[in-house]
Amino acid sequence: MTLWLDPEPVGWNLVVDDALAEDVGYGDISGQAIPADHISKFMIEAQAEGVVCGVGIAESILAPFAHEPSWCHFTPHVRDGDLIDRGLLVIEGAIPTRRLLSSERTVLNFLMHLSGVATLTRQFVQRTEGTNATIVDTRKTLPGLRSMQKYAVRCGGGKNHRMGLYDGAMIKDNHIMAFGSITEAVRAVRQSISHMGKIEVECETPEQVSEAVRAGAEVIMLDNMDPFTMRDIVQRHRGQAIFEASGGISLDTVRGVAQTGVDLISVGAITHSAVSVPFHLELQ
Amino acid sequence: MTLWLDPEPVGWNLVVDDALAEDVGYGDISGQAIPADHISKFMIEAQAEGVVCGVGIAESILAPFAHEPSWCHFTPHVRDGDLIDRGLLVIEGAIPTRRLLSSERTVLNFLMHLSGVATLTRQFVQRTEGTNATIVDTRKTLPGLRSMQKYAVRCGGGKNHRMGLYDGAMIKDNHIMAFGSITEAVRAVRQSISHMGKIEVECETPEQVSEAVRAGAEVIMLDNMDPFTMRDIVQRHRGQAIFEASGGISLDTVRGVAQTGVDLISVGAITHSAVSVPFHLELQ
Amino acid sequence: MTLWLDPEPVGWNLVVDDALAEDVGYGDISGQAIPADHISKFMIEAQAEGVVCGVGIAESILAPFAHEPSWCHFTPHVRDGDLIDRGLLVIEGAIPTRRLLSSERTVLNFLMHLSGVATLTRQFVQRTEGTNATIVDTRKTLPGLRSMQKYAVRCGGGKNHRMGLYDGAMIKDNHIMAFGSITEAVRAVRQSISHMGKIEVECETPEQVSEAVRAGAEVIMLDNMDPFTMRDIVQRHRGQAIFEASGGISLDTVRGVAQTGVDLISVGAITHSAVSVPFHLELQ
Amino acid sequence: MTLWLDPEPVGWNLVVDDALAEDVGYGDISGQAIPADHISKFMIEAQAEGVVCGVGIAESILAPFAHEPSWCHFTPHVRDGDLIDRGLLVIEGAIPTRRLLSSERTVLNFLMHLSGVATLTRQFVQRTEGTNATIVDTRKTLPGLRSMQKYAVRCGGGKNHRMGLYDGAMIKDNHIMAFGSITEAVRAVRQSISHMGKIEVECETPEQVSEAVRAGAEVIMLDNMDPFTMRDIVQRHRGQAIFEASGGISLDTVRGVAQTGVDLISVGAITHSAVSVPFHLELQ
Amino acid sequence: MTLWLDPEPVGWNLVVDDALAEDVGYGDISGQAIPADHISKFMIEAQAEGVVCGVGIAESILAPFAHEPSWCHFTPHVRDGDLIDRGLLVIEGAIPTRRLLSSERTVLNFLMHLSGVATLTRQFVQRTEGTNATIVDTRKTLPGLRSMQKYAVRCGGGKNHRMGLYDGAMIKDNHIMAFGSITEAVRAVRQSISHMGKIEVECETPEQVSEAVRAGAEVIMLDNMDPFTMRDIVQRHRGQAIFEASGGISLDTVRGVAQTGVDLISVGAITHSAVSVPFHLELQ
Amino acid sequence: MTLWLDPEPVGWNLVVDDALAEDVGYGDISGQAIPADHISKFMIEAQAEGVVCGVGIAESILAPFAHEPSWCHFTPHVRDGDLIDRGLLVIEGAIPTRRLLSSERTVLNFLMHLSGVATLTRQFVQRTEGTNATIVDTRKTLPGLRSMQKYAVRCGGGKNHRMGLYDGAMIKDNHIMAFGSITEAVRAVRQSISHMGKIEVECETPEQVSEAVRAGAEVIMLDNMDPFTMRDIVQRHRGQAIFEASGGISLDTVRGVAQTGVDLISVGAITHSAVSVPFHLELQ
Repeated sequence: MTLWLDPEPVGWNLVVDDALAEDVGYGDISGQAIPADHISKFMIEAQAEGVVCGVGIAESILAPFAHEPSWCHFTPHVRDGDLIDRGLLVIEGAIPTRRLLSSERTVLNFLMHLSGVATLTRQFVQRTEGTNATIVDTRKTLPGLRSMQKYAVRCGGGKNHRMGLYDGAMIKDNHIMAFGSITEAVRAVRQSISHMGKIEVECETPEQVSEAVRAGAEVIMLDNMDPFTMRDIVQRHRGQAIFEASGGISLDTVRGVAQTGVDLISVGAITHSAVSVPFHLELQ
Repeated sequence: MTLWLDPEPVGWNLVVDDALAEDVGYGDISGQAIPADHISKFMIEAQAEGVVCGVGIAESILAPFAHEPSWCHFTPHVRDGDLIDRGLLVIEGAIPTRRLLSSERTVLNFLMHLSGVATLTRQFVQRTEGTNATIVDTRKTLPGLRSMQKYAVRCGGGKNHRMGLYDGAMIKDNHIMAFGSITEAVRAVRQSISHMGKIEVECETPEQVSEAVRAGAEVIMLDNMDPFTMRDIVQRHRGQAIFEASGGISLDTVRGVAQTGVDLISVGAITHSAVSVPFHLELQ
Repeated sequence: MTLWLDPEPVGWNLVVDDALAEDVGYGDISGQAIPADHISKFMIEAQAEGVVCGVGIAESILAPFAHEPSWCHFTPHVRDGDLIDRGLLVIEGAIPTRRLLSSERTVLNFLMHLSGVATLTRQFVQRTEGTNATIVDTRKTLPGLRSMQKYAVRCGGGKNHRMGLYDGAMIKDNHIMAFGSITEAVRAVRQSISHMGKIEVECETPEQVSEAVRAGAEVIMLDNMDPFTMRDIVQRHRGQAIFEASGGISLDTVRGVAQTGVDLISVGAITHSAVSVPFHLELQ
Repeated sequence: MTLWLDPEPVGWNLVVDDALAEDVGYGDISGQAIPADHISKFMIEAQAEGVVCGVGIAESILAPFAHEPSWCHFTPHVRDGDLIDRGLLVIEGAIPTRRLLSSERTVLNFLMHLSGVATLTRQFVQRTEGTNATIVDTRKTLPGLRSMQKYAVRCGGGKNHRMGLYDGAMIKDNHIMAFGSITEAVRAVRQSISHMGKIEVECETPEQVSEAVRAGAEVIMLDNMDPFTMRDIVQRHRGQAIFEASGGISLDTVRGVAQTGVDLISVGAITHSAVSVPFHLELQ
Repeated sequence: MTLWLDPEPVGWNLVVDDALAEDVGYGDISGQAIPADHISKFMIEAQAEGVVCGVGIAESILAPFAHEPSWCHFTPHVRDGDLIDRGLLVIEGAIPTRRLLSSERTVLNFLMHLSGVATLTRQFVQRTEGTNATIVDTRKTLPGLRSMQKYAVRCGGGKNHRMGLYDGAMIKDNHIMAFGSITEAVRAVRQSISHMGKIEVECETPEQVSEAVRAGAEVIMLDNMDPFTMRDIVQRHRGQAIFEASGGISLDTVRGVAQTGVDLISVGAITHSAVSVPFHLELQ
Repeated sequence: MTLWLDPEPVGWNLVVDDALAEDVGYGDISGQAIPADHISKFMIEAQAEGVVCGVGIAESILAPFAHEPSWCHFTPHVRDGDLIDRGLLVIEGAIPTRRLLSSERTVLNFLMHLSGVATLTRQFVQRTEGTNATIVDTRKTLPGLRSMQKYAVRCGGGKNHRMGLYDGAMIKDNHIMAFGSITEAVRAVRQSISHMGKIEVECETPEQVSEAVRAGAEVIMLDNMDPFTMRDIVQRHRGQAIFEASGGISLDTVRGVAQTGVDLISVGAITHSAVSVPFHLELQ
């Protein structure tokens, strides 16, 4: 399975450019005294175990430019989604020192955060091994980084829920209130969406689940339910819909949830609260 | 102390616009069936204790537009930097339902993350109370969010280190290598920077500290040193420079570091690994 | 049914700004000699029958600014999706003459084109009245105008197919070739898409349809088939999938296609070859 | 005569980028399962006769990137402005399959629309062969596409009228009203425009034409006049101005108009109502 | 005569935003300690005589925002193009102090430079009073500021030559070389430009002038000729073309050039070498 | 000393793109008739003595593109900061004629202006040779060009003061008023700025200087003082702060100011009123 993206999602280059710009601004005042033709070899090492993500982004920043000396290079030793361990050499290369110093922090910031997301995702995935459940993400992402974070989730073995409000119809309590009932809400939303999309309804009680299934919802979110209730619902409605468990699920509780038989478990923490994986860039 | 920013830092409006755009895309397919003139009252509550940050950003997104009914409103009950507790009502208001549903997630994503940064910062600040040490941030920030995260650090009671490569001169091991010595590096960088800036030198040994002080560095970073060594250095060079401790400092170790007498303690984790503070938006 | 959009799709304001900019450039050299405080009343009339689309866009351009005299106004007499006839007054208002003259052409260009798309769509919809078939659009849209054109299709009574490559999975002959078979292609794509999306397979023969249905495709495109074949397929697989007819369907042939029992008929011409509806702006 | 543009008009690259972005969004969910190193040969064929336009734009999208295999290529067999016929191979090439599939629709959308404009223009040009009249375009263009459409008009053998409000002074009924008379309007506008530009006056009667000529207008637009009136005017004022016929001129009526002796005939339909020319991209 | 622009030329708002952004960056670190609700009255005074330009731009920056106290105001006492003298109060107002301090420098930078351009232009205009010659600008403008500088030229009483390469055809020595002769160059360029534009030929000898006139050029640039030659040419070809003198013309030589009878004198220095007019902003 | 910048300051490419765009617009109507494959050799010569600046920018515009013939080239004979004289060949090269003609003016506009800034700076630097004083710039820069102008100042031998409001704390009379006293202002600003920055106080009297020094200001601006007062202050406070002279200092007065012993002399004129250095581009 390849995780390199082609075509690149719209806007990734802008996220990278903005990140470089917010660090460099009107110039690296510490580095400008270094001779322009000074070249450095560098190595990037992982400083903890986990799943790496961001190697392609690092390449887009650190790969040699056409006008740089021909012995400059960027050589990755891993690819996004690979397992890494403390001390592993992930990337080595050689580029002009000034350019290296002015982009080092940005490269590491991407690697650290995206690997953090991938690594936390993988921990959830591992806890659910042997069950039917797939770990998916949510829209609880960090501003501006959603598409990259969702890529990191895939690198960690999870799958993506909808990207945003535009590519998946989800009926929540507010919609139910606005339309009067689940039945009516499903009917109204079905009218307005494309034939390519399914409808998911957020349910808080078994009665709501029954109504949503009858109304034709293809996906049912079991919102903040206890495992026993979820198990009952999944058994009663087997084959009638896809079931997603949601709501404050942690590494401690995820296996119990998975064993209820749900198809999907969505976890906001993998994108809004991932702790970064440390990497180190060293010059030689 | 006010924490509202005027003038607003360059680019904040673009970060907010991008965050809304990545969620809304070509439209909210679940919400478009709700009548355009349906208005909802809403409340945003904190679901954990901490320091709030992002109320001004929420206002920039949720404040009523001129063409909306006059009884629409946005009423904050806290301001950025205030302590909050589980169940506290932080914001209430009323705006058209469709607009509320299509911006709800983005508002919460800002509040959750920035309050997370402010809250973690405050925990470090509290651990060092009664000492001379100030908690400062680093350049280990999330891509595109640096300026907002550094604002959140201030809301949490910390102070900011340099914003980027352009507004503070820091001499690291690589610069020392490139110039041959600390003395030469300080001399060269002094030549090229403005008279408004100080020079900080990253030191790994007491000998390096002595050389940096003699070379005229105004700030010394004590990189990954043990507390005993730091204390010795601070006492020997008292009054000759500002001392900053750095390197893997955690909530467990920060008080010990602060007691060495250093002036500043920089903590990357407050921006790269803050866990979000949960908030909830409810319609009435 | 409301057709005004809230939230506005991402980028519509930029399309409008670009259109104004390409006309105005560094200034209206014919109008600059008119006194700045000269105000004109205006009326926009339809010059042919059809379905109007673009009134909201006209309002975003021509609505009075806060600093303009209070008796300036913008008063629409129709809303997007309404039927219009030759001579119908669609909008009247009053704004400064210079601003009116410099935006008149742009407003009319939007109205003429979008109403053209809505009107052509409605003609296809009318031809299929009384059948089961819904008219949908395609990705054969004019560069930069896709989201607006698809809105015009809805105003004309049609529905939207996927917006782009990102929000609907379509397996075409190329994918089938790349994966070896329809069965394998459906399996591979199912792996990589969200649980919120369905899979459509483009089929050229009844055998392909059977394989696609067995593979679990939720939607089958009948590509360039004759009506007899389509009718047979629809009858044989009733209830097993959604069927879409596609390929060179014209106003002359669409009713025959609709009578085969297909669920959807996609028509590229409604977006790539719509003839504009004339409108006229007159000053008083 | 070459029709390739150098320098490229400002903003063409943005129009192309926007068109790709609106199709790709956060990724091609159907194509991502195809191996990243899979390369495809492709051919683009015309499916109707006409004038081709958009080959250069196709090249800017499909030409091999530096990092792609060296046997990738883009080989056009026609150039913009060439006549084409049903079945003609216009372009062939080879690039990575994923990139091909994610840009195919955008390339074809440009080719289809711009060739449609060029082809319709040529039809008008052909109908006026042997007369003195030149076919020119108007400002009735599709939002955002004006500069490309006007290029297509040139490819079809037409010429361009002014690009926008900024590069040509046109006095219409509104200006005449605002200034009191044609004479005064020409005087005022002459004051404010550069010595490099001419003034065109829109006239509805022979009396207005006489006044405009006396006032020194270099170009006279004969607005919605019958051929007899136009012929009279052209004969009476021969050599005193350039005469442009305008107003609802169709393929049926254009030759009669041309035979009145006017210098220019402006046709809005060639840009606002061109039907697309079909092209087909096939993989091998 | 009004000099306020409506519609505003494309991009002026971006020039203003960029200027503010390059000064403010991530915030005014000197001003952030001032209370957010502190309001200041201010006055802007001219510190030298000249022609003012930039009052409208100042208003776009300093005018009160809707949410600021109602007694905030911006009151201009002059308008662009007015004569000013040392000590004249040009603008007064009241806005929040922080916003004032963070935009003061940018406002003054626009006023100083644009008034410098207008003032120098007026000096050239005054030297040619009583002659037939009009002072015009060139394309020798400061990067990014062309449209504003050309507006300042008009405020100073000059007129504009073409805005750029796109709105006026000028045949220079290079074009003549490329085409073989002036005659051929004029013929080729006439073919490719709109009927709304004239052709100017840059001539260095009387023979070239004669050829250009015969070829039908409407405007002749007399490039770096001495006054006697210019006078001869103007007299010989009176009525056959518009004559523009160009090439290193200074305040000392401009009157002599004007007395040759040329229609236009173009001066690069008014845009590339204008000395700024000092203004002072004072708080009360 | 190298003056080439790596990394390039944020936004320089946009300044260059905007400058090209404002000249080219929708195309070079004079040059489009030249054959697309016509290549020209060119030479750029200085037409006056001075300091060159802008060679790197010229290269970024004129350097051959990958698809242009291999014998195209860009060969600079000087580098930014070099002394030049009338008639010196600074750059030669060969590129397609159309591209050359459409970018010639923009290249020269950059060279002329930036060399003007560098040359004027050098004149101030030369006048202060043998003294302790360094020439620095101010924030009185031309809108949008600050970073480039400040680079030109360095090329002329000057140094940069702060880039903007964000990277240096300056306490002016307004701040003093707002805080009640210099002492209080310094205290408040110290609280809010980073430990990496110094504080400068603008003083108008010796008493203010004394208070500022006692308050801990690292830099004192002597605003519009006479040389005698400045000399006294510098002598009395030697070693206690850095002293900057400011206020209307000209080439005539700068040496007298330098001899007072101040460390820095800031001159607004080098950026707001530099006269351009003429350059000429010739085709062969």
